Amino acid sequence: MTSVLPSSRFLRRHLFGLVCATLAGTSGAQHVISPSQAEQFARQSFPAYLQFLSMPADAAKPADIQRNAAWLQEAFEARGFRTQALPNEGKPVVYAELPAGQPGRKTVLFYMHFDAQPVTPSEWQTDPWTPTLRARDAAGQWQTLPLSKLSTDPIDPEWRVFARAAADDKGPIIMFLAAIDALKAAGQLPEVNIKLLLDSEEEKGSPRLHSVMAAHQALLQSDGLIVYDGAMPASNQPGVSFGNRGSIQLDLTMFGPLSAQHSGHQGNVIPNPALGLSQLLATMKDQDGRVVIPGFYEGVHISEADRQQMAQMAPPPGALAKRLGLARLTTFAANPLEAVQYPSLDILGLSAGQVGAKAANAIPATAVASLNIRTVPETPPARMLGLVRQHLVDQGVHLIEGEVPTAQERSQFSRLARLTMLAYPSTSTAARVPMDSPLARWVLQGVKAPSRIEPEKVRMIGSTLPMSGAVDVLKMPYVVVPLVNADNNQHGADENMRLGNYLEGVRTIAAMLTTRLP
Amino acid sequence: MTSVLPSSRFLRRHLFGLVCATLAGTSGAQHVISPSQAEQFARQSFPAYLQFLSMPADAAKPADIQRNAAWLQEAFEARGFRTQALPNEGKPVVYAELPAGQPGRKTVLFYMHFDAQPVTPSEWQTDPWTPTLRARDAAGQWQTLPLSKLSTDPIDPEWRVFARAAADDKGPIIMFLAAIDALKAAGQLPEVNIKLLLDSEEEKGSPRLHSVMAAHQALLQSDGLIVYDGAMPASNQPGVSFGNRGSIQLDLTMFGPLSAQHSGHQGNVIPNPALGLSQLLATMKDQDGRVVIPGFYEGVHISEADRQQMAQMAPPPGALAKRLGLARLTTFAANPLEAVQYPSLDILGLSAGQVGAKAANAIPATAVASLNIRTVPETPPARMLGLVRQHLVDQGVHLIEGEVPTAQERSQFSRLARLTMLAYPSTSTAARVPMDSPLARWVLQGVKAPSRIEPEKVRMIGSTLPMSGAVDVLKMPYVVVPLVNADNNQHGADENMRLGNYLEGVRTIAAMLTTRLP
Repeated sequence: MTSVLPSSRFLRRHLFGLVCATLAGTSGAQHVISPSQAEQFARQSFPAYLQFLSMPADAAKPADIQRNAAWLQEAFEARGFRTQALPNEGKPVVYAELPAGQPGRKTVLFYMHFDAQPVTPSEWQTDPWTPTLRARDAAGQWQTLPLSKLSTDPIDPEWRVFARAAADDKGPIIMFLAAIDALKAAGQLPEVNIKLLLDSEEEKGSPRLHSVMAAHQALLQSDGLIVYDGAMPASNQPGVSFGNRGSIQLDLTMFGPLSAQHSGHQGNVIPNPALGLSQLLATMKDQDGRVVIPGFYEGVHISEADRQQMAQMAPPPGALAKRLGLARLTTFAANPLEAVQYPSLDILGLSAGQVGAKAANAIPATAVASLNIRTVPETPPARMLGLVRQHLVDQGVHLIEGEVPTAQERSQFSRLARLTMLAYPSTSTAARVPMDSPLARWVLQGVKAPSRIEPEKVRMIGSTLPMSGAVDVLKMPYVVVPLVNADNNQHGADENMRLGNYLEGVRTIAAMLTTRLP
Repeated sequence: MTSVLPSSRFLRRHLFGLVCATLAGTSGAQHVISPSQAEQFARQSFPAYLQFLSMPADAAKPADIQRNAAWLQEAFEARGFRTQALPNEGKPVVYAELPAGQPGRKTVLFYMHFDAQPVTPSEWQTDPWTPTLRARDAAGQWQTLPLSKLSTDPIDPEWRVFARAAADDKGPIIMFLAAIDALKAAGQLPEVNIKLLLDSEEEKGSPRLHSVMAAHQALLQSDGLIVYDGAMPASNQPGVSFGNRGSIQLDLTMFGPLSAQHSGHQGNVIPNPALGLSQLLATMKDQDGRVVIPGFYEGVHISEADRQQMAQMAPPPGALAKRLGLARLTTFAANPLEAVQYPSLDILGLSAGQVGAKAANAIPATAVASLNIRTVPETPPARMLGLVRQHLVDQGVHLIEGEVPTAQERSQFSRLARLTMLAYPSTSTAARVPMDSPLARWVLQGVKAPSRIEPEKVRMIGSTLPMSGAVDVLKMPYVVVPLVNADNNQHGADENMRLGNYLEGVRTIAAMLTTRLP
């Protein structure tokens, strides 16, 4: 999973102002696990962690997945969990559950994934499936340390374990096991019924997770879903995001002549579908980047409090623009954080004929634009599709139902186009949990407990989450709690897990498990 | 060469109205060669024609070209021409000349080409390099006739010789030889000094012909140039075109962020270059297809007489639209013939990101449109480039000079683009000979002579001619006189030459050669 807090590098400098802020409803979280206890149980978990990381887990390889899944079932069953391998075309998803210590407790489903991005070993300093321990020397260079230091020396929070999936997302799974062990040793019982769903294909976009969930809906049903995935803010301070935009892709094909026509013979004589397409696209947004399709933003309301919070956290003007090589950002929203709270419309691709030296002197027969609408919970996909359709009709376009226009349609309508919405997995659902909801308050309480630092609270991230479309099957509120260092190189070479984050992660999970969800 | 009279199938039905029209200045053309004489010398030329067609002449194969060139030199020298192989990187262009019968005569350069389109033999009924004689039976099916019929039977005008290059453009070369033979036999001396330029790479767009011409400018200098290439009107009636549009390609690249950006994280936050490009393109033309870039049509004047002639010849409304699958044509000009008398602007291609299933959820870093401007003599390429540049600047675009924007440009300008004009051979020159000029009158007189049918006169065709850019080197007026049947399948399988056109072609060439150019 990519960073769920993409703007967080800009939040850091504003964080000190937030540390002292009081958040209603997050008082009194337990310190069930002290830093020294965390270190003890983290240390105890390292052999399992190293073993787990030694097992390649390429989501494309069923044998990898099966081996990892079996390992996980054994690890959770050894801690009293009931487990189940949920069938998924040879790449089982692992389910595990443990009841709370008391009856009448709420149930939380924890989502993590054990599959990993594919690797290019030649780009790595050491073999990606052979974990190594490293620390930076005084010159800032990574030096390998003997793994034995993990059992002999006090843990330096700056040490890192290098291996594929060390952070994304095997690290959090082992932190979870360590937290369970720590609670047991402390005689603490979980204050929530625990369910775990450990995905086997997240790095491939969880293409079948929705089917797996649909087939086990009763088993998975819970009062909320926590996603332990993604990277923390660059500050390594706690952060939580309460929602994500959804995404749909609309392909707009404009039809011209039956076949490409010589631009000398027909130039001036017949309309050009590439121009027609450009003219339609030009009607969709204004110069400030605001979508002008009627009704596009209807129902979206951002509270004054949220707006102020985002204004405080927003990056300094120009910093993002400079990094991206732009003279300015779009100006329709007050700042980038606020901008992604609205639905957006972008052109992902344009295609007609050929360009440059490959261009034929021809008026193309068709021109295609692929549009991406990022939705918010208030602007569901079907409505957005309807609005775009209506806007095109308002521009005099006849939208065909078939694959290509019929002869009748060609003879009757001078602006012919097809608009199609791509199916799942190109469609992903928006979701947002109110920050003052019970689930959100419970999360914030747990996340704040170990460090007493007020978490960065992101109302909604601009991107989707890989499994959000599938999660939609369960109709559950969900919150994303990243636990790993921002600079973990996930998806790239030399992926690593910072042990300071590992220790804090164990404490955070333990705190959440021992906080009662109202 | 593709048809130089693209609209001519529509002209046919209006032709009868023109047959009786009187054209000033075309009186008194000689009937130097009667139909029976034409048949005699056509018949005599067939063995050479069949031999010439048996020699593959793929412009990509130097050995083919060399063999054909040597054959041509021999054929022309046998008729008293001085010939010369003009060096052209292994693919010689053949030059031949024969002085007029009297001193003080004007000089005409005749352009034809002996290279041929490549073939896909599997698509042909018979081997493309083995000429066959065929006629349609009562059921309309082609039946092969023995080649011996060409020497034993009277020639049926509907017979056809099938072979690659039979029509495009070896046929006219052999007709030329037959016309010379006929004149000699009749004791007629040419009334013009004859020069011939027989191109070897026309089907490849004559990429080096301009260099060959530049190297032999004095040799080739003449009072006018006649191009015997392209197909006659579908009516098989005489037709002449007096000009062609030019063509330039402008590539417009719009710059967005330094690299493609996640459309979830940045959607709404940063401008999208594909949208920016669409918005710019949309400003270039109105809904009628009229270019609204200021000054685009400046200097273009179509006389009322020309306008009326085109209105008479123009296709019935809807016929072209129907054939192309369009509800309507553009409406800014009165009819398609008039439309191509103006410069045009078309989008040949659009490219940004990817579309459809390949689309990434990313805001592309750049978006490119390739534009094609068809120029007319009054709107030269440099001026058109300047107008487009100025129009873009007027839209707030900063046009960079380099390949990519500098950091300074990126920080300073919010609408950054590059506009480049592709070099020759993507640039082709417009040319037009006034219909009342001496050369035009001479051509019309000769073309009308055999049949007494008033030729279809096309002021200017919409397309370029493959060699027009090169011809521009010679700064000579030129006129295109097509001699072969419209349905000759040039460039495709089963290319063929209708012998009725062959006979008329011999007479037409003879008539032109024996008419004095004032």
